[in-house]
Amino acid sequence: MLTQAQKKNIKQLHDKIHRREQGYFVAEGEKVVCELLLSSLEVKSVYALNQWVEKNNNLLNKVETIVVSEKELQQISHLKTPNQVLAVAKTPHYEIDFLEIKKGVSLFLSNVNDPGNLGTIIRTADWFGVSHIFCSEHTADAFNSKVIQSAMGSLFRVKIYFVSTEEFLERCKRYEITILGADMNGTSVYSYSFKCPMVLVMGSESHGIDEVCKRYINEYVSIPGKHNAESLNVAIATGILCSEIMRSVLEQ
Amino acid sequence: MLTQAQKKNIKQLHDKIHRREQGYFVAEGEKVVCELLLSSLEVKSVYALNQWVEKNNNLLNKVETIVVSEKELQQISHLKTPNQVLAVAKTPHYEIDFLEIKKGVSLFLSNVNDPGNLGTIIRTADWFGVSHIFCSEHTADAFNSKVIQSAMGSLFRVKIYFVSTEEFLERCKRYEITILGADMNGTSVYSYSFKCPMVLVMGSESHGIDEVCKRYINEYVSIPGKHNAESLNVAIATGILCSEIMRSVLEQ
Repeated sequence: MLTQAQKKNIKQLHDKIHRREQGYFVAEGEKVVCELLLSSLEVKSVYALNQWVEKNNNLLNKVETIVVSEKELQQISHLKTPNQVLAVAKTPHYEIDFLEIKKGVSLFLSNVNDPGNLGTIIRTADWFGVSHIFCSEHTADAFNSKVIQSAMGSLFRVKIYFVSTEEFLERCKRYEITILGADMNGTSVYSYSFKCPMVLVMGSESHGIDEVCKRYINEYVSIPGKHNAESLNVAIATGILCSEIMRSVLEQ
Repeated sequence: MLTQAQKKNIKQLHDKIHRREQGYFVAEGEKVVCELLLSSLEVKSVYALNQWVEKNNNLLNKVETIVVSEKELQQISHLKTPNQVLAVAKTPHYEIDFLEIKKGVSLFLSNVNDPGNLGTIIRTADWFGVSHIFCSEHTADAFNSKVIQSAMGSLFRVKIYFVSTEEFLERCKRYEITILGADMNGTSVYSYSFKCPMVLVMGSESHGIDEVCKRYINEYVSIPGKHNAESLNVAIATGILCSEIMRSVLEQ
C-alpha cells in the first residue's frame, strides 16, 4: 500500500519545479523502464503491478521495488492510460568535458520548447551517435514525461546538459569548436563541408536562433526546399542535418 | 447566436466517422484558417470572433462568416485553448492521375497511425515538393485536428489520397513506377541511386511495412546509424529520405 505522502511525492514530479528541487524524474511504460534499468542512471524506486515484477525480476537487483495495484498505479501515473510500471530515477548531471566535445559533433538547442520535438531530437541524435546535447535556458525540460515518451530510452544514453547560452558558446569559441547554425539563408547542406569539431545550433520552433547565439555562430547551413511550406519542423531539420553529417563522416 | 444543432454538428466533426459521413472537416487557429482560405479547398463556414473578422475581411469574400462569442467558440472548438477562429471545409477527394504520378516522387504511408507523425510528414513533403501522399487503410485520418495542427497549412496544398494498398500498388506496378521501401536492412541511402518515377513506402511506427506492401516493393533503402536507438521516428526517416531524393535531383 502506498501512503498519501508517497503518492503526493510522485505526482509532484510531473512538475518541472519539483523535479529540479528534488533532483528526480519519473519514467513510465514497460519499454522505457526496462531501458532505464539497463542504463547507467540511478533508479530510486520501481512501482509496478505484480505481473510485471515477476516478468522482469532479473532487472530489479538492488532496486527498491514496490508492488502496486492498478488503482494505485493510476493514482501516481502521469499518463492518461497508465502502463504496468513507473520508475523514479535520479536526474543525471554531467560535467562538460570540452576535450571530449572537441572529438566530434554535438547539438545545441536554442529554446526548442516543444517536448515532443525535444524527445524526437534526442532519439535521432542517439541513432546517429551524437552523444552530447546542450539545452539553452528556455529549451523544454528533458525530464518532462512527453520528452521521455518520445525519446524512447535514448534519453538514458545521450548526455543532456542544461547550460547558459553565452557561457557555453563562449567556451566553445575558446576551444576552437566550429559553431554552425541551421538557418534558411545558410549555405545549402548539399554543398557544405562539415568540419569537426562542431556544435550544430538549432533554433526555436517559432523564433529560430536567438540573438545571443547569432553572435557566436561561425557559419550557417540550410536545407533547400521548394518553399511551399514556410519551414521544416525543427526535429525534421535536425534529423536531416545529422544524416548529412553522418554521410560526410562515412565519405571521409 | 449559434443553435444547438449547429454546435452539435461542428463538435461531431471531431470524430472520424462523422467527418467521413458528412464530408467535412474542421480547421482551427489563425494561421491554419488563413492558409485554408487562401487554398483551393471549398470552405463552407467560418466561425470567428469579431476582431478576427475585422482583421481578415479581405479573405472572407463569398464565405459564410458567423461572428461568435468567446464562449461559443469554446463550445465548438476541438482545441483545449481555442483560438479566434474555426472553419468548416469540404474534405477534398482527388482522382489518381497515374500519368502525373509517373512524373516524379510520391509517398505511400503503410499504416502510419500517429496523427502528429502524419502531419509532420505532410509538412515535410510539402517543403520538398512531394505533392501526392497515398495513405493505406490504417493510416491516421489526415483531417484529424492533430494532423491539421502539425501539418501547418501544408495539408491544403499536398494532395492526400485514401487508397487500398493492394489496388494502388498493383496499379503502380502496371505503370512501371519503382516501389521503394524504407527498411533497416535496405541499401544505404548514401549509396543508393534514386530513380524516377518512384513511390516511397514508409511503414507503421510499431510494425514497419506490412506484408501486402512487401509483395510489391522492388528495392529497399536504409538510413545508416550507430544503432544505439532501436529505430528512427517515421517522420524523421521520411524527412531524411525526401532530403536525399532532393539532393539526387539537384545533382542530376
